Amino acid sequence: MAVTNTRNLSGNRFELDSRVGREEASVKWTRRREMVRWALIVAVAVNGGAASLNLMPAPWKATVGTGSLEIDSGFRVAAKGYSDARLEAAMARLALRISRQTGVPLVRNKQVQPALLVECREGGNPYPTLGEDESYQLDVAPEGAHLRAQTVTGAMRGLATFAQLIEPGEKGFQAPAIHIEDRPRFPWRGLMLDVSRHWIPVEVVERNLDAMAAVKLNVFHWHLSDDQGFRVESLRYPKLHQLGSDGHFYSQAEVRHVVAYARDRGIRVIPEFDIPGHTTAWFVGYPELASAPGPYAIERTWGIFQPTMDPSREATYAFLDGFIGEMAALFPDPYFHIGGDEVEDTQWKNSPAIRAFAREHQLTGSRAIHAYFNRRVQALVKKHGKTMIGWDEVFEPGLESGTVIQSWRGQASLAEAARQGYRGILSYGYYLDHMRPAGFHYGIDPQDGAAAALDARQASLILGGEACMWMEYASAETVDSRVWPRAAAIAERFWSPRNVTDLQSMYTRMEVASRGLDWVGIQHRRSYASMLDRLTGGQTSDAVRVLADASEATGIEVRRDARKYTSLVHLNRFVDAVRPESETVRRLEQAVGRAGADSAELAELRAGLRQWADNDARLGPLAEGNGFVSELKSLSKNLAAVGSIGLRALEYLEAGKAAPEEWIAEQMKALDAMEKPNAEVVLAAVRPVRMLLNAVSITGNKISKRG
Amino acid sequence: MAVTNTRNLSGNRFELDSRVGREEASVKWTRRREMVRWALIVAVAVNGGAASLNLMPAPWKATVGTGSLEIDSGFRVAAKGYSDARLEAAMARLALRISRQTGVPLVRNKQVQPALLVECREGGNPYPTLGEDESYQLDVAPEGAHLRAQTVTGAMRGLATFAQLIEPGEKGFQAPAIHIEDRPRFPWRGLMLDVSRHWIPVEVVERNLDAMAAVKLNVFHWHLSDDQGFRVESLRYPKLHQLGSDGHFYSQAEVRHVVAYARDRGIRVIPEFDIPGHTTAWFVGYPELASAPGPYAIERTWGIFQPTMDPSREATYAFLDGFIGEMAALFPDPYFHIGGDEVEDTQWKNSPAIRAFAREHQLTGSRAIHAYFNRRVQALVKKHGKTMIGWDEVFEPGLESGTVIQSWRGQASLAEAARQGYRGILSYGYYLDHMRPAGFHYGIDPQDGAAAALDARQASLILGGEACMWMEYASAETVDSRVWPRAAAIAERFWSPRNVTDLQSMYTRMEVASRGLDWVGIQHRRSYASMLDRLTGGQTSDAVRVLADASEATGIEVRRDARKYTSLVHLNRFVDAVRPESETVRRLEQAVGRAGADSAELAELRAGLRQWADNDARLGPLAEGNGFVSELKSLSKNLAAVGSIGLRALEYLEAGKAAPEEWIAEQMKALDAMEKPNAEVVLAAVRPVRMLLNAVSITGNKISKRG
Repeated sequence: MAVTNTRNLSGNRFELDSRVGREEASVKWTRRREMVRWALIVAVAVNGGAASLNLMPAPWKATVGTGSLEIDSGFRVAAKGYSDARLEAAMARLALRISRQTGVPLVRNKQVQPALLVECREGGNPYPTLGEDESYQLDVAPEGAHLRAQTVTGAMRGLATFAQLIEPGEKGFQAPAIHIEDRPRFPWRGLMLDVSRHWIPVEVVERNLDAMAAVKLNVFHWHLSDDQGFRVESLRYPKLHQLGSDGHFYSQAEVRHVVAYARDRGIRVIPEFDIPGHTTAWFVGYPELASAPGPYAIERTWGIFQPTMDPSREATYAFLDGFIGEMAALFPDPYFHIGGDEVEDTQWKNSPAIRAFAREHQLTGSRAIHAYFNRRVQALVKKHGKTMIGWDEVFEPGLESGTVIQSWRGQASLAEAARQGYRGILSYGYYLDHMRPAGFHYGIDPQDGAAAALDARQASLILGGEACMWMEYASAETVDSRVWPRAAAIAERFWSPRNVTDLQSMYTRMEVASRGLDWVGIQHRRSYASMLDRLTGGQTSDAVRVLADASEATGIEVRRDARKYTSLVHLNRFVDAVRPESETVRRLEQAVGRAGADSAELAELRAGLRQWADNDARLGPLAEGNGFVSELKSLSKNLAAVGSIGLRALEYLEAGKAAPEEWIAEQMKALDAMEKPNAEVVLAAVRPVRMLLNAVSITGNKISKRG
Repeated sequence: MAVTNTRNLSGNRFELDSRVGREEASVKWTRRREMVRWALIVAVAVNGGAASLNLMPAPWKATVGTGSLEIDSGFRVAAKGYSDARLEAAMARLALRISRQTGVPLVRNKQVQPALLVECREGGNPYPTLGEDESYQLDVAPEGAHLRAQTVTGAMRGLATFAQLIEPGEKGFQAPAIHIEDRPRFPWRGLMLDVSRHWIPVEVVERNLDAMAAVKLNVFHWHLSDDQGFRVESLRYPKLHQLGSDGHFYSQAEVRHVVAYARDRGIRVIPEFDIPGHTTAWFVGYPELASAPGPYAIERTWGIFQPTMDPSREATYAFLDGFIGEMAALFPDPYFHIGGDEVEDTQWKNSPAIRAFAREHQLTGSRAIHAYFNRRVQALVKKHGKTMIGWDEVFEPGLESGTVIQSWRGQASLAEAARQGYRGILSYGYYLDHMRPAGFHYGIDPQDGAAAALDARQASLILGGEACMWMEYASAETVDSRVWPRAAAIAERFWSPRNVTDLQSMYTRMEVASRGLDWVGIQHRRSYASMLDRLTGGQTSDAVRVLADASEATGIEVRRDARKYTSLVHLNRFVDAVRPESETVRRLEQAVGRAGADSAELAELRAGLRQWADNDARLGPLAEGNGFVSELKSLSKNLAAVGSIGLRALEYLEAGKAAPEEWIAEQMKALDAMEKPNAEVVLAAVRPVRMLLNAVSITGNKISKRG
C-alpha cells in the first residue's frame, strides 16, 4: 500500500508553496467579491438601519428595527416557562460575558424585570444530539428582548447571537432593535484539536469550547492518541497513559469534566483513538500490540511512522475490545472515531506471520489487510453501542452503512461515499495548521465540487464539516492564535446560508468576532503582545511588533523543512507569535484599493509605508546579543526595502504618472524574492506594495489620481 | 473635631492641581538626576559586564561575572539540605514562571542535575514574621547557580531575583553570571488594597500577591470594611456581611485561603476594620452600634460620612470584643489594624447621651472622645493577643507603647511618634489612587524630612511603609493597572539602599519589571488593549490607542469633581483604560533630550509627532453614534494640535534657528490650556512639545542642531 504523508501535507489543492496557494486563493476571492451580496446586508439596507450587524455566523434572516435596548447594571436574563439547569447556567454565562464585554457590573436583583426573556419549549436531550433542533427566533426592541427556541440548545445559539449584538452607542452599551430567525445549515459543525503532538491542559480545552459555543460550533473532535502521546487515563490498560504520555494525559475525571463542560454549551465530544497506524505511543506500554517486536519509545519527531498494530493476532482485538468498551462508557456520544488514516505498511510487509495471515484470509495487499482490520474494529465499536467514524481511508467495501466518513481528501470522496449511502463530513480545506487565510477556508463548501452533482437525498448525507488543528507547530500557548479567529469563518460556512460568501463582509465581521473572543477567554490577542515582549526580554518591543504586524506565520509545509523540529524544540520564536493573517496588511490593501478616491487613504498608506521603511533602524539595536531578534535581521531589512519601494510608487501615484516599465519590473522581481519565507514567516507587506506597483504601471494602472 | 476629607485628597504636598504637582515633582527629579549614581551600576561598570541588569528592587550588592547560565527544558531547581513544603512550592512556582516567561516547557526529570541549587539553613517561622531574616546570596555561573539563605523567606526573595535575571541571549534564554548579596532596608514593605469601595474577587487578590512577591513586598494590608461595604463573613455577627456587602464578601474559608496563599509567598496579611468612622456598612445590619438611630443603607458615594460608632454604650465594646475575638482567630498575624481615621463628629455632637457621657468622663471635645474609644479598643485588641495599628489619628496621649502608627500625613508625624517611642510606617506619598508618576513616589523616603533628624534608635522605629490603593475609581478590572508597575518603584524604595535614586535607571528597570508581571498573571498590560477595543465595539481601535498612549489618567482629585460618581457608575470609559503614566510620552521626552546629538532620535520624534497630528482624522469616524469615543473629540483635536505645534518646533530645531518669541509664547499658552484635564485624562503629549519649544526659544535653547 503506497502511503504518503498527505494528511499532514497537502491534498489536491493544498499546494506546497504557500505563496502560490495564496495567489490562487486571491484570484478566487476577487471572483467571489463580484458575486451575490448576502441576504443580511440586503435586509439591513431595506430597513434603512444604520446598524452594522457584526454577527458571525450570519443569521438566516435579520430585519433591523428602530431604536435599541440599553444594557445597564440592571440588565437581567430570565427564562419564561420551561427551564432547567443547563439553561440557567447558559443564562448566567451570558450575564458574565456581557459584564466582561461591556465593563458593566450586572447587579443580581431578581426584583428587576428581565430585559431578555428566554422562552424554551423543552429541554431537548440533556446530552446534545446530532440533528437536534438548534433554531431560535430573537426579537430585540427598546423595551426588552425575547428569545424563543424549541430546545435549550437552540436557546443557547440565540444567547450567543444576543451577546454579539451588543455594541457601544450614544449613551452606553446597547443591542439594536432587530428581528432574527435563525437555524443551522449543517447539523455537524466541528473543531478537531490534536492534543497528542503538543499537549494542552484542560483550561485551554475549556476556553476553546467557550469560543466554539460563541460561534455556534457543536462538535468537539478530540484527537487523543497519536505517535507522540497517548492522552487519556485508561484504568484497564494503565501503561497506555503511564508510559505513553510523559505525564501529560487527562484523568477520567477530567474527561468527564470536559464532556460535561461541552454538553452545557450544546457541544458534543467525539473522541478519536487513531488505529492501526499513528500508534507508537500505545506500544511504549504494550509492545505486543505492534506488528514488529519492541521496545518502542514516544515519537519526538513529525511524520508517518512504521509502528502499526498487528492485525493478525486475536490478542489485538481482545485488547481493543476491552479498550473501546472502557472508552465507550467514558464518552457518552454515540459516535466513536477510530482514525484509520495513513497506515504505513512496512511492518506488515516485513512480518512473516502477517504475510501468512493475509494469505490465509485471502487479503491481497496492505489495503485489504487494513479493510479487514477496520471490519473487526467496527464490530467492536458496534458491540459497545457506538457508530464508527473514520478518515477517508476507512471507506472500503464491506463498511457498515451507518459509518461516517471524515474526508481530508475533498468533496469527491464525500460524494462517492454519499452515492453509496454513507454519511460524511468535510475537513478538506479546513486544516488550520496550514496557516491559510480565513478567506481560503471560507471559499470551501462541503457541497461544492463533485458534491454539487448529488441529488437531494444524497446531499443530505453530507452532515457538515470540521476545522482541524494538527499540533506539530502549536502549543498550549499558541493554539488559540492558530485556531482563532479563522475557525469563526469556517463556523459561518457550516451555519449560514450557502450564498453568504462576501469576503469583505466576512473579514469585517471576523475581526469583530475575534475581539469578542477576548471576552470568552481566548488568548490569541493577549498572548500576541506578551510573546513579542518576551523576545526582547521586557524591553520595548515596538519595532518587533511592526515587523510582526507586517508578517504572516507559515504552516506545516514550510516549517517542516525550515529546521530540524522535534517535540522538544520550543515554540517561543517570532514565527510562533506572528499571526497566520495580517490585519494591518489587509487594511493597507484596502487603502490601496481606495487610494484614488480618498486622500485620507493616501495619508494612511503613506504613514504605513513610512513606518515600514523606518523600522529596521529601530529594530537593529534590539538584535544585539539576542538570537530571537537577530534571526529577523534580513526579514527586517526586507520590510524596510518594501516600504521604500511603496513610498516611491506612491510618489508616482500622487503625481498621476506611470512609472517606467523597467523600474517596475525590477521592483516586482525584488518583491518576489522578498516574499519567500524568511525566519519561517512570509512578508505580507509585499502584497499592498505589489498592488501599488500595478497601479502605477502603464498596463496595469487602474487607479487614477483624483484625491 | 474639625475633620476634612484629607486622606482621600491630599496631604501637605499632595496638591489639588495635578499639573502643579507634576511640575514640582519634575523639578525634584531633575535635581536628583544629578545625584550619586547607584552602587549597582558602578559594580557593573567596574566588572566591565555588558549585561543590563534589569532587577527591581535593585540588590544591595551585585558583581557581574563572565558568561551566562542557559535556561533550557532541562532547567531544574532543587533544595540542598533543609527543605519544606513552602520551599518546594516556591521552587515549583519559579519553574512555572520561568516556563511562562521564556516559553520553554520545563521537563520534569529528577535525573537531571539541578541548574539552581537552593541552600537554606532553616524554615524560619512558618508564618512570616516582622523582622525575620530575608537576606540571601545568589551566585550564577555558566555551570549552575547557587542560592543561599538563612530562612525560606530569604530563599524566596532570591528566587524572585533569579526570575528577573533571565533574559534572551544569543542561543536562547539565559541568566548572566553574577554574584549578588542582598537584604531588605526596611522590614515592613506593604501594599494596601481597599476592597470595600469596589469589590475584588479572590483571584484578583491572588495575582496581586504574586506580583508583590515578585518585587519583594511582604505585607498585604487588607482594608476590609468601610462605608461602602463590609467584606468578611462573620459567623458571630452574620448581618455584617449579609446586609453590608451586596453579596460581595470573602467567606472565612476564602480568607484562610488568601492568608495561606500569602504566607506561602512570604507575605503577612494584616486585616483592617476601620472604626469608629467609615462604618456605615456595619450599621445596615446593626444600627444599634451607631451614634444616631437608623436605619442605615450601604453608602453609594464617596467621601466622609456621618455614621460613627457610639463610644458611650458598653454594648458597642461588647460587640467589638466578640468581633475582634472572631477576627483575631481568623487572621494569624500579630498585628491588627483598627483604622481610626477621619472621624466625622456630627453624630457625637448631636447626641445628648454622648454629650452626657463625655461630661461624665471628662472628655473635652471629639478628639478626646475618639482617644477614649481607641483606648477601649486597644484593650480589646490586646485581650485577643494582638498589637494594634492605626492611622495618624490614633496617635494621642495614653496610647500603648507597642502601637504602630501608619502615617498618611508625612514623615513629621512618624518622627514625632518615634521620639515618643512609637513605631511607624509611612504611607504619605505612596497613595497610588492619586495617579502620580512613579518618580514622584520614588522620591519619597520614610527617613527623609523630619525623620532625617532622628537618632539611630529612633530611626529604627520607622519600620518601612505601604503603598495604598483606595478604590473609589478602580474596579477588579482596572486595579492591576492602577497598582502596577508603580508599586514596583515603591517596593524598591523600601528594599534597596537609600542612595538608589537614579530616575532614569528606575524607569528603565520598572518598564522591564512591568512586562515581567505579565508572567505572574497581572493584567495591567493585557487589559489595556481589550478595554480600548471595547470602546469601539470590536472595531479596530488603533486611533483610540494612539490617543490613550498620549494621555494619562487622572486620580481622585480630578475625578471626584468631574462628574457625579457613585459606586454604580461603570468604570469602563477611556479614562479607566488609560494608564497613570505614558511610556510613549516618556520616550519622546528622552528623544527631545537627545535630539541634538542623534538624527535617529529626530526621526523617531518626527514620526511620533506626525502620528499625533494625523490621529484626529482617524478617530473621527469612530465617534459616530458612539458616546465612549465622542467624549474624546476635543481631547483628540488637542492631540492633533499638539502634534502640529511639535512639528513646527522641530522645523526650527532642524534649521538650527530660534523661533520667534511671540510665536513661542502663543504656543506655550495653547499647551497650558490643552494640558488641563479633559475627559478626566491629562494630555501628556504636551510635555515633550513644551520641551521642544524651550529648545527653540532664544532664552531656553539648550539643543543645537548637530545631527
